[in-house]
Amino acid sequence: MKIKFLTGLLLALLPAYSFCQSQDEGMLKAIFNEALVNGQSYEMLDYLSNQIGGRLSGSPEAAAAVEWSRQEMIRHGFDTVFLQEVMVPHWVRGKKEVTRIVNSKKTGTADLKICALGNSVGTGPAGILSSVVEVKDFEELKKIGTKQVEGKIVFFNRPMDATKISTFAAYGGAVDQRVFGASEAAKLGAVGVIVRSMASNNDDIPHTGTLRYEEGVKKIPAVAVSTNDANLLSELLKDDAGIQLYIETHCQMLPDVLSYNVVGEIKGTKHPDEYIIVGGHLDSWDLGDGAHDDGAGCVQSIEALRILQSIGYKPKRTLRAVMFMNEENGLRGGLKYAELAKANNERHIAAIESDRGGFTPKGFTITGSDSARATLLSWRPLFEPYSIYDFGKPGGGADIGPLGESGTALIGFLPDSQRYFTLHHTDADTFETIDKRELELGAASMTALVYLIDKYGIDGKN
Amino acid sequence: MKIKFLTGLLLALLPAYSFCQSQDEGMLKAIFNEALVNGQSYEMLDYLSNQIGGRLSGSPEAAAAVEWSRQEMIRHGFDTVFLQEVMVPHWVRGKKEVTRIVNSKKTGTADLKICALGNSVGTGPAGILSSVVEVKDFEELKKIGTKQVEGKIVFFNRPMDATKISTFAAYGGAVDQRVFGASEAAKLGAVGVIVRSMASNNDDIPHTGTLRYEEGVKKIPAVAVSTNDANLLSELLKDDAGIQLYIETHCQMLPDVLSYNVVGEIKGTKHPDEYIIVGGHLDSWDLGDGAHDDGAGCVQSIEALRILQSIGYKPKRTLRAVMFMNEENGLRGGLKYAELAKANNERHIAAIESDRGGFTPKGFTITGSDSARATLLSWRPLFEPYSIYDFGKPGGGADIGPLGESGTALIGFLPDSQRYFTLHHTDADTFETIDKRELELGAASMTALVYLIDKYGIDGKN
Repeated sequence: MKIKFLTGLLLALLPAYSFCQSQDEGMLKAIFNEALVNGQSYEMLDYLSNQIGGRLSGSPEAAAAVEWSRQEMIRHGFDTVFLQEVMVPHWVRGKKEVTRIVNSKKTGTADLKICALGNSVGTGPAGILSSVVEVKDFEELKKIGTKQVEGKIVFFNRPMDATKISTFAAYGGAVDQRVFGASEAAKLGAVGVIVRSMASNNDDIPHTGTLRYEEGVKKIPAVAVSTNDANLLSELLKDDAGIQLYIETHCQMLPDVLSYNVVGEIKGTKHPDEYIIVGGHLDSWDLGDGAHDDGAGCVQSIEALRILQSIGYKPKRTLRAVMFMNEENGLRGGLKYAELAKANNERHIAAIESDRGGFTPKGFTITGSDSARATLLSWRPLFEPYSIYDFGKPGGGADIGPLGESGTALIGFLPDSQRYFTLHHTDADTFETIDKRELELGAASMTALVYLIDKYGIDGKN
Repeated sequence: MKIKFLTGLLLALLPAYSFCQSQDEGMLKAIFNEALVNGQSYEMLDYLSNQIGGRLSGSPEAAAAVEWSRQEMIRHGFDTVFLQEVMVPHWVRGKKEVTRIVNSKKTGTADLKICALGNSVGTGPAGILSSVVEVKDFEELKKIGTKQVEGKIVFFNRPMDATKISTFAAYGGAVDQRVFGASEAAKLGAVGVIVRSMASNNDDIPHTGTLRYEEGVKKIPAVAVSTNDANLLSELLKDDAGIQLYIETHCQMLPDVLSYNVVGEIKGTKHPDEYIIVGGHLDSWDLGDGAHDDGAGCVQSIEALRILQSIGYKPKRTLRAVMFMNEENGLRGGLKYAELAKANNERHIAAIESDRGGFTPKGFTITGSDSARATLLSWRPLFEPYSIYDFGKPGGGADIGPLGESGTALIGFLPDSQRYFTLHHTDADTFETIDKRELELGAASMTALVYLIDKYGIDGKN
């Protein structure tokens, strides 16, 4: 009895291996070897970054990226490659922006390192000139109130929290200033906003990113300023509250443009009506070439299908690599994909998104049922030989998010996050900052997960 | 009875926490916060890399680095800072090396991207000109034999194994060619060697590194060639075995120079006669500025003591930050340190070395007793909130190695390894490739381990 009890207890303590571990170990080895020896992520990303470049929704480069990824997936011999039409916003930066301190006692006239925020209206050639009110958050802004804010430029200057180990957590704690700051300030009569860049460190690089104007609130221009210049401005304001800023931006929102999600598919042999997708977003900001955000996720997704094909794996379920359009300033592609999946009665059991850069893989996050999470956790031992340990924290991805309401397990690829917010949405997000092995290892880990989900399901259904 | 049995079993299964976990969690949080908010590793490394630069043993830069690190530790207010005299080799590269294909049918005359290997003799201005024998390893070399090798240049061209997840494992599997290739080839009458660079990827950067001439064997000149040019040369040799290489190098070994290990110390309050050291090596190669190899390890070691001091921790044992001299081409500093520790009857309970670059921390390796390893493993849960999971694999560090015979637990700091061998021993190992958060997180994890060893001991003795 004791032995039986002990055995039962030990079995309960063991991870839930319902699979043939050694066969899976062999498959993961084959997948990682293929990625590390013959991997094509790096070459694909070189083309997308250096031959096409930054590809904001509606731009010629975004159109080129659609056609490139379509041809690329045809070249890899996927069963089907098709486009999904989607209308996307078409914001343009226009000519170089300026933000200038015009009357500082200390610095006199000095240009700050800034860039317009995405979706912002421009000031036009006349620019705006006004004094500045610095705040840390919306609460402080409201406390100061209309009287102090009216006619002014609001300076949102709350840094990302350096003590958070995940830089995405730090980003999440600061990004409200960028997304909602313009409308919150406009409600109190501000004429413009300048937002501290969402950056991990103090440096000279401004970070763009989307803002959302609230319906019915006046749209006022918004720029991001480098963290060093945010510190400078804050310092100057302490002694010299009369400082004025001149902001001149030329951005505008043009009419929507027809664009596309691009989908490559390998048909399932046993459950062709069940879908597992792996994706990234094809659009990027106009600064830099979008190598990490999110060229990496796109090429890794294509690569996941290529690797499985190349090692001769025949999936039971239908696999798709999805290049979503317009994650950055609209999410129209992600919404369209989920809308079509629903309309076509396509049962998506799992969606994996890579949108945190092409860095060394650390694990996967998940939003889904308890059993989906437990299944994901049970696979962790298979990944440990590849130094991948971090499984099951909450997460997913922006583009795959809209699939959640139909019960799809949403899985986020989790690479090392320390460098990401030194590059994110800046002209420093370029191919030169990509490490080949890190990128290919990410593709391999995504491929391995696609394989396991295809073989075992994710939600208790084999 | 059953309940008692169950409790006993569960306790046995739990990690060996003999400590007050919540207090330690608080200390680790304080350590990481200090590093991430007020960390000085990055600034120190900026100075060492950009104001001093590459600092090969015996060079003026190495002397400057000794004095800089001495002053730096005094500035931080450590109890004692002192130097340990050590004679070091003084190898100099001399003027720019050349290796040229002189009579290829395909390329005609073409310069290869090369650099002389450290400790190599030079060819002198006359250079050497000879045909080339390509081999993968010493076995193949011996099989080919003296008749084919005599008077020739031997080309060692075995790549690092891309399928190894740890790039250090791949390095370990290939570096014999660089270290011993010259003497092995000379034994069969070769006049020079050209070695494929120890690099993870195919690129245009040659990697230097030390070679060791075997006593009594003729010293022949040796260069490393970039992986791309190694591939080119190999390709050309297939069709055109008559190709000749011209090698001209101007390096030479000068007389030994007096140099120093630099040691900063905080005296223990309870066991001042027990030592825990944390170190890196102050010397680097002459190419690049040695930011990763091993400026990072030096500043992280100083930072470990600074952090503990700054959060008000009073160590029970004596803590030392040790800047070892001459790891790269002699290990004289590491040998001298162990020699003096023995002569002075200093009981070193643990030595931690950081010499794998300033990348995101992943864990610690160990060489020591079973109980030391078990103690290290028991601390892993404390590090998981910092995304640090990899504990207890065999390892240590070159400089601390000589302490092993007196029973010191040898611990290697283990950062992410994927980028390391794109930079290692090249002119690309520069401060620009350092990420501030990655570097400071490494320092924090080393500090945390010093704290735990100081508090609990490492080998069963509190």
